Amino acid sequence: MSTPSRFKKDKEIIAEYESQVKEIRAQLVEQQKCLEQQTEMRVQLLQDLQDFFRKKAEIETDYSRNLEKLAERFMAKTRSTKDHQQYKKDQNLLSPVNCWYLLLNQVRRESKDHATLSDIYLNNVIMRFMQISEDSTRMFKKSKEIAFQLHEDLMKVLNELYTVMKTYHMYHAESISAESKLKEAEKQEEKQIGRSGDPVFHIRLEERHQRRSSVKKIEKMKEKRQAKYSENKLKSIKARNEYLLTLEATNASVFKYYIHDLSDLIDCCDLGYHASLNRALRTYLSAEYNLETSRHEGLDIIENAVDNLEPRSDKQRFMEMYPAAFCPPMKFEFQSHMGDEVCQVSAQQPVQAELMLRYQQLQSRLATLKIENEEVKKTTEATLQTIQDMVTIEDYDVSECFQHSRSTESVKSTVSETYLSKPSIAKRRANQQETEQFYFMKLREYLEGSNLITKLQAKHDLLQRTLGEGHRAEYMTTRTQDRSSPSLWKAVFGS
Amino acid sequence: MSTPSRFKKDKEIIAEYESQVKEIRAQLVEQQKCLEQQTEMRVQLLQDLQDFFRKKAEIETDYSRNLEKLAERFMAKTRSTKDHQQYKKDQNLLSPVNCWYLLLNQVRRESKDHATLSDIYLNNVIMRFMQISEDSTRMFKKSKEIAFQLHEDLMKVLNELYTVMKTYHMYHAESISAESKLKEAEKQEEKQIGRSGDPVFHIRLEERHQRRSSVKKIEKMKEKRQAKYSENKLKSIKARNEYLLTLEATNASVFKYYIHDLSDLIDCCDLGYHASLNRALRTYLSAEYNLETSRHEGLDIIENAVDNLEPRSDKQRFMEMYPAAFCPPMKFEFQSHMGDEVCQVSAQQPVQAELMLRYQQLQSRLATLKIENEEVKKTTEATLQTIQDMVTIEDYDVSECFQHSRSTESVKSTVSETYLSKPSIAKRRANQQETEQFYFMKLREYLEGSNLITKLQAKHDLLQRTLGEGHRAEYMTTRTQDRSSPSLWKAVFGS
Repeated sequence: MSTPSRFKKDKEIIAEYESQVKEIRAQLVEQQKCLEQQTEMRVQLLQDLQDFFRKKAEIETDYSRNLEKLAERFMAKTRSTKDHQQYKKDQNLLSPVNCWYLLLNQVRRESKDHATLSDIYLNNVIMRFMQISEDSTRMFKKSKEIAFQLHEDLMKVLNELYTVMKTYHMYHAESISAESKLKEAEKQEEKQIGRSGDPVFHIRLEERHQRRSSVKKIEKMKEKRQAKYSENKLKSIKARNEYLLTLEATNASVFKYYIHDLSDLIDCCDLGYHASLNRALRTYLSAEYNLETSRHEGLDIIENAVDNLEPRSDKQRFMEMYPAAFCPPMKFEFQSHMGDEVCQVSAQQPVQAELMLRYQQLQSRLATLKIENEEVKKTTEATLQTIQDMVTIEDYDVSECFQHSRSTESVKSTVSETYLSKPSIAKRRANQQETEQFYFMKLREYLEGSNLITKLQAKHDLLQRTLGEGHRAEYMTTRTQDRSSPSLWKAVFGS
Repeated sequence: MSTPSRFKKDKEIIAEYESQVKEIRAQLVEQQKCLEQQTEMRVQLLQDLQDFFRKKAEIETDYSRNLEKLAERFMAKTRSTKDHQQYKKDQNLLSPVNCWYLLLNQVRRESKDHATLSDIYLNNVIMRFMQISEDSTRMFKKSKEIAFQLHEDLMKVLNELYTVMKTYHMYHAESISAESKLKEAEKQEEKQIGRSGDPVFHIRLEERHQRRSSVKKIEKMKEKRQAKYSENKLKSIKARNEYLLTLEATNASVFKYYIHDLSDLIDCCDLGYHASLNRALRTYLSAEYNLETSRHEGLDIIENAVDNLEPRSDKQRFMEMYPAAFCPPMKFEFQSHMGDEVCQVSAQQPVQAELMLRYQQLQSRLATLKIENEEVKKTTEATLQTIQDMVTIEDYDVSECFQHSRSTESVKSTVSETYLSKPSIAKRRANQQETEQFYFMKLREYLEGSNLITKLQAKHDLLQRTLGEGHRAEYMTTRTQDRSSPSLWKAVFGS
């Protein structure tokens, strides 16, 4: 342990001790500073969070108001329209109008949700951060009080160590001094005994008497010094024992403070901090996730309406809206002239042969026309399919615009690429219009052909009935009327 | 069919026909008006959609800018702090600071996403609506051209019906007139034959001659009228046949127009409309869904950071940040005085008995203290658990604020109920602080007790070693030193 070659002086030992204690004191002060600084940083962080959410609440409120205004502006516009009145009445809207109303509804929903978000920030999240800040400060004060007590205890222990060490030094010094005095007495005694060992005949009687009293004196002094030494030696042992015990206790206390108590002090500062922060942030997350869910629900409603964008049912609704315009007119009836009692085609002689010839001509002409028109129809339908393919191309996925893994700068530039700045779009549109042009040309051709066929077919069928089943002509006329009977028209147009 | 009691006059029939045609004409005009109106409504709807998305793009841009400013403001503030420098350096942040940075990141992400949304509205969605509007107008024009042709065809058919009906009337009238003239001739002939049946002897020769030439004349006239009648009768039959055939063709054409062609005309107007609208709205939906996904990803990152809000690891980091303050100091060593060669507790006579007594006293006092302090510890821990339960209460679900099924008015009022306006909150906080107060009192008591125990235990253990294993005292001192060896401290504090 200590160098045996050179003993440390008392002052040296004390100085070493004091420097060690000074270092510990400095550490204790530093520890408090660190905890205080930590608390200040927490309070600052919580203040930042409050400011942040206050500002974000403002932004959300603005956003909400703007969305509300937007929805209101268009709602007000549509509220007066015929569509809207119909909407109110039977909810049976044209599918694009339905999408439009749902779009406005979605904006209102978003408006409401962002207002709610703002409200939750202001009246819940921010309040939580405020309370956590209060709590942190309070916990730090509590921890400081406990630290103060622990530091005092530690100082007491260190002071005690100082005291017992000094006591040990003192008693040990006294013990050494008593030992050296005893040794001196022993030396004197030896000297005296050595002298009395000299040849007796040389010594005078007085001298002999003098010497005896001197030996006695030395012996007495030695005994006294022996007692003193033993007493001091015991005191020194006890003081050393006390020093060693106190040293053990001190090291244990210091160890306990640094390893356990310091950790407890930090725990005191932390008490509830992480858990409360967790809850405050989870409130924020709950609000955001719920906003998202609501938004998603709204979008799903719109998506459903988009799925139901359907020309067929809209056409049905459109025609039902204007029954006067689209209801087929009455059939033209045969108007018999001046009591003419014949009201069907006469196929007797002399017209029979002529009618038969006409019938045969119609038949062959119709066959040709039908073949020709079937070709036109096929071309028309194929062209229509091409257009359908063009207008149903799935070019609406914009997910690549929202890739956050890319660098910040590249996000914006990709947006415009996705749909319109592609040169192919203009080309695509030109191509589409060209196809349309061709389609309409073919459609007109087809309609022209089919109109002619309809007319000739009607004549052909009537002639066929007349010539083939002359005796049942009356019945056939009745059947012809059935072709456009109200019940059929009803089936085609709805009621 | 026609009333047999009274014949309709020609004029009546023509008037009826004309009114029926007029009605059809009016319907055709009305149909075009309806289609035009539908197109106008579409164009208006598409204009509204464009205005709507233009305005919403503005709102999104504003929102994005405000969020960007918000993030930038706090980013700039934190960029200069020590935390941030550490963040840049080793990404090893205190868990609450990590949450804070991720919160700012989320705002930047939202800012970017809403800017992207705005961009997609302006450069993609709106352009689509513009094109659909153009397309609708073009389709309507095409449809109108076709309608014009179909209407002309229909009018031609109706005119033809008029013509053949008039022809029938004319020939039938002529046939009737020829018939009546024939009948008149027949009547005259009968009269003449009746006269020539008179007794011949009464008639003079000249008279007889005169009568014979008159009969011949009447016969010739009758023949002529018979021929005329037959001719007119045939013409009339042919005209009626033509009328009936044309009537059949007309009804078939009208039927075809109303049932098929009208539908085709509407289809022409609709061509691509629903499909293109579908794609435009799907582009909007794709943008919104992607924004949502991105937002959700960001929130998940924050949630993960909130899950990792952890006092233990933060304490570790905190102490590592300030090693000078938290590193345990050197052990206090035994300082032997003036070459004192004994450096351990002496348990020889005469101190042995005293030390033994002291050891026993320490032992019994420690036993009592430990029992007492164990009780305090239990109370402290139970109180801490109560506080932990209080600060980890799951009171952060705000989903009820986002219930859209409720009426609009009730949404707002529920928000404030969820967390802070509940009177229980103040009570809860007061209760929590009271519990804290008690906890800290108990903690101080426990620490005081444990500090005393530590000191006494250290002395007790040293005495036990000294008295029990006096011969191995030197070795024990070495072992005692081991208790606070650097390697152990290192294990506790980290390096």
